[in-house]
Amino acid sequence: MQTTRRNFALAAAAAVAAAQDKPALTATAVIERIRANVGVPWRDQTVDTIKSGNPATPVKGIATTMMATLDVVQRAAAAGRNMVITHEPTFYSHEDRTEPIADDPVYQFKQSFLDSHQMVVFRFHDHWHAHRPDGIATGMVQALGWEKNADPQNARQFLFDGITLANLARQIEDKLKIRTMRVIGDPALRVRTVAGNWGYSSSLRPFARPDLDVLIIGEAREWELVEYAADAVSAGKKKALIVLGHIPSEQAGMAHCASWLKGFISEVPVEFIAASEPFWSPRAPAA
Amino acid sequence: MQTTRRNFALAAAAAVAAAQDKPALTATAVIERIRANVGVPWRDQTVDTIKSGNPATPVKGIATTMMATLDVVQRAAAAGRNMVITHEPTFYSHEDRTEPIADDPVYQFKQSFLDSHQMVVFRFHDHWHAHRPDGIATGMVQALGWEKNADPQNARQFLFDGITLANLARQIEDKLKIRTMRVIGDPALRVRTVAGNWGYSSSLRPFARPDLDVLIIGEAREWELVEYAADAVSAGKKKALIVLGHIPSEQAGMAHCASWLKGFISEVPVEFIAASEPFWSPRAPAA
Repeated sequence: MQTTRRNFALAAAAAVAAAQDKPALTATAVIERIRANVGVPWRDQTVDTIKSGNPATPVKGIATTMMATLDVVQRAAAAGRNMVITHEPTFYSHEDRTEPIADDPVYQFKQSFLDSHQMVVFRFHDHWHAHRPDGIATGMVQALGWEKNADPQNARQFLFDGITLANLARQIEDKLKIRTMRVIGDPALRVRTVAGNWGYSSSLRPFARPDLDVLIIGEAREWELVEYAADAVSAGKKKALIVLGHIPSEQAGMAHCASWLKGFISEVPVEFIAASEPFWSPRAPAA
Repeated sequence: MQTTRRNFALAAAAAVAAAQDKPALTATAVIERIRANVGVPWRDQTVDTIKSGNPATPVKGIATTMMATLDVVQRAAAAGRNMVITHEPTFYSHEDRTEPIADDPVYQFKQSFLDSHQMVVFRFHDHWHAHRPDGIATGMVQALGWEKNADPQNARQFLFDGITLANLARQIEDKLKIRTMRVIGDPALRVRTVAGNWGYSSSLRPFARPDLDVLIIGEAREWELVEYAADAVSAGKKKALIVLGHIPSEQAGMAHCASWLKGFISEVPVEFIAASEPFWSPRAPAA
């Protein structure tokens, strides 16, 4: 026992020394590993860049999230995760342009919080979608429990046995715990073919596919795809559109991202921090 | 009696003859009257143009609407209103571009319906907002019954006596009969100053105003104003955002438009046809 204890103490001291000698894992190194593992060439034009913080920052822990809201970065800081990997913007525009909001007090509050906690925020959007299979789609299928429904011909398509639209909508609402889902279409519609277009949907085409009963999206403009879907229903098409809200529509894809990162990052803890659905309904105010 | 009857018959015959002699009111003439009465110079660059139909069409009746959905144009045709004056697009984009959707079956169905019923659709967006007071804002205040709350300094601002956000939201939901309203903020927030930014909100500035408790909008992108509003609340700002949905947020402005048109169009009937809120909630499927 005495020997074993001494050996253990020596081994522990050696491990501490090794850790001290080993160069710290920087944010740059984390991004390099992502680039090396994502399986697609890194794009010249991409929003997948550092949005805040010093790339040389030693990373103590990583939080993945759908959207680096102030609430998320505060929770990440409290948990000791000083690198946040976010799918959606931090500063209220797709390009995270901060010049137009430089004098804005909410921006300043968030930026000061990130700076004073020496946090790094990296966006991982284009390449997580470009990963094969699409990282967001993989996570959403897991969260919905739709692996068994997946169409062998098309990973973004799901086959059902005539469930009503009303029941499908309730099933999704329950699985993803959404407060403010919205649906267009006949609640009694019998659903066989469903596609997920996770996130923002600017095109009419995915909905227009004649073989599709239901398209699920995160958000769309109400004078674009929303009007089109309503008109399709009025024109007699047996179709429906389910609008989850942007955060619920991609959230699980960033939970999957945390699992994926753990496959090649073991020096620091990696965890998923869920962004809150921003909205509540007047019929059920948020607590 | 006999004489009176004969006089009446003669007068009626004269009226019919006069109506037959009088040149028909064309869509062009309706638009000319709108331009003459709107009180602001007509813009060179504007979406306020004819989207479908022949400008020389004799107008039998006018329907105003928030959005010329297929359902609305079908109801207008059934009511004999062959000119539809719409605030929002007919063909799924702000510019109503039809070339990209020329082969789309929903577009073709709608266009065929409009053509076969010899209907004219005219958009009245930019100049109805530019009218003083803003025609949409006037209608929304009437629908909400908020004339008494209007701030004498600012027609788009409303003063309340500390109503909770939850109660304000329910009041709006009831007045405008909205199924899928969404709210960001503390339901217990005491509300004194409210502003309406009816329609789409692309800017962060109206919400950022420090003197404002609640901003009401139609829709916004969820990675822009929606994230900003959530962050403002997380940063401790005593503020809230109410998202009505685009149609409910401007609908009453086009009911008001029908009243306004009747002030200078008396040859044909003018009526408001409400566009349906497109969405239902899984908790309360549409009938």
